Amino acid sequence: MAERDFIARLLAPLAKTSAARGLADDAALWTPPLGRNLLFTHDILAAGVHYLPGDPPSDVAWKLLAVNLSDLAAMAATPAGVLLGLGLSAAEDDNWREAFVAGLGRALETFNVSLWGGDTVTGLDRAVLGLTAVGWVEPGKVLGRKGARPGDVLHVSGTIGDAGLGLAIAQGKAPFDKGLLNRFRRPTPRLALGAALGGVATAGMDISDGLLIDAERLAAASGVALAIDLDAVPLSRPAAGLDDLLGRVTAGDDYELLFSLPPGAGPLPTSAGPVTAVGRVLPGAGVTLSYAGQPVPLPTRLGWEHA
Amino acid sequence: MAERDFIARLLAPLAKTSAARGLADDAALWTPPLGRNLLFTHDILAAGVHYLPGDPPSDVAWKLLAVNLSDLAAMAATPAGVLLGLGLSAAEDDNWREAFVAGLGRALETFNVSLWGGDTVTGLDRAVLGLTAVGWVEPGKVLGRKGARPGDVLHVSGTIGDAGLGLAIAQGKAPFDKGLLNRFRRPTPRLALGAALGGVATAGMDISDGLLIDAERLAAASGVALAIDLDAVPLSRPAAGLDDLLGRVTAGDDYELLFSLPPGAGPLPTSAGPVTAVGRVLPGAGVTLSYAGQPVPLPTRLGWEHA
Repeated sequence: MAERDFIARLLAPLAKTSAARGLADDAALWTPPLGRNLLFTHDILAAGVHYLPGDPPSDVAWKLLAVNLSDLAAMAATPAGVLLGLGLSAAEDDNWREAFVAGLGRALETFNVSLWGGDTVTGLDRAVLGLTAVGWVEPGKVLGRKGARPGDVLHVSGTIGDAGLGLAIAQGKAPFDKGLLNRFRRPTPRLALGAALGGVATAGMDISDGLLIDAERLAAASGVALAIDLDAVPLSRPAAGLDDLLGRVTAGDDYELLFSLPPGAGPLPTSAGPVTAVGRVLPGAGVTLSYAGQPVPLPTRLGWEHA
Repeated sequence: MAERDFIARLLAPLAKTSAARGLADDAALWTPPLGRNLLFTHDILAAGVHYLPGDPPSDVAWKLLAVNLSDLAAMAATPAGVLLGLGLSAAEDDNWREAFVAGLGRALETFNVSLWGGDTVTGLDRAVLGLTAVGWVEPGKVLGRKGARPGDVLHVSGTIGDAGLGLAIAQGKAPFDKGLLNRFRRPTPRLALGAALGGVATAGMDISDGLLIDAERLAAASGVALAIDLDAVPLSRPAAGLDDLLGRVTAGDDYELLFSLPPGAGPLPTSAGPVTAVGRVLPGAGVTLSYAGQPVPLPTRLGWEHA
């Protein structure tokens, strides 16, 4: 399929809102809700780096959108529109492209986000898929990594380490489990929770590279220490001892939220989904761990580190 | 250089505005000027497709920014910020990366644009460089491809076909000429002109794939015919006859603006730069050419067509 057919036949039907101008102009045009702050993020998924070349194309599309929306959720933003930057190789044949676009369309509908525009280049050596997501937040409600204070309670959403278990399944290293595989391939951006945390949490971020490494980043940005109780970390499958547990909290791709609530914070709305207190914010620096009431040394590898 | 050093040591110093949050949060935060419409565009440059792997990295950075700002200029927008999506291979070594970032910094300063954020992935087979540009325009002043009306006069900015001559030089097919080479490697987005055309021109776009193919697109979007007088097309170097002239008007990468002015339009401000009337808007469809008072058949190839 020629690039112009790919755009006209497959992508243009997804560009339903007037902002996209039918993908027929040089740029998209959007009038933001009056008086809002705007959030912008851009994340890339490359074949063989961020996903496995054999992953279903509809799942790749889902993940490309989800990881970007997760960044918006982390800052308490509501997504509005996205731009695509699709670099494709011969491996992404017409069937792949059709399945990718169909999956992208379903993902955009699920999260109520519009395709505004973008660019496509073909003939590359492998797929390099970029997406820019734009969202908005009411002034004063934006969440960031800086702001956690001693006395706050550290929380996570959902369950931790599932995507790492799913990756092992996708790699053929563990027995099939649809639920865990989906946690790797089709992560859920915690948008309702993020919006509920705006103006409530003191700091927040999404867990993309592993709970421990991301906790270290939040601690550094806020200038505090974080004491994490490993017994309290919510798991969907029980851990077989400390080593297994350390594997879960250093696995990437969770896309859960990590955030600190001040002592007096009321309960979050039930629509925000399950959250669990996993530790305390203390004066100092860095992350400390405890397990069964005993201190545990930090593992050498805290999570996924980009080369 | 590890990815985190690349970001922390080279890119973070470019992220000077508060919107970028020091590249240390999950997304950039920007409050747009009140009541403006916002424009968004994303264009990719891939090594070996859109630029030659041997092109100076500072020129690649310039071009990556310039082609995106040209899309904003085409819609009468003033740029505000950009997000980068850098996919890099081993060929982009530390020297390349340092020169790229230095060039990018100079280009951002030249056009008064802020780096807001983005993503980097290394270990690819070739460089795939994406950039999202965000700009704003006063409501009612946005320019698009739709809107040219019979009776309007078709104009272009600057001179046409220079980048094609520059590409031939870069490919070693023509004798060295610094000015022409720069027209290929360091195009100038016509931002002042674009802003001046907002609310004045009836339609506009940038010439990225060749004057004739882009004129055909503007004609189709507006539902009109465009009659172009080839004798009137502004050239920086005289053409050696009709064939040479047809080569100029079908060469890509000009990044000049193509726009239609209504009959009563007053003169543009001199800060907008030189513009030339090259044809007329007529009822009908498609592009027709004349040269030395005679009709000229459209060439088979109207410009750069993406595969």
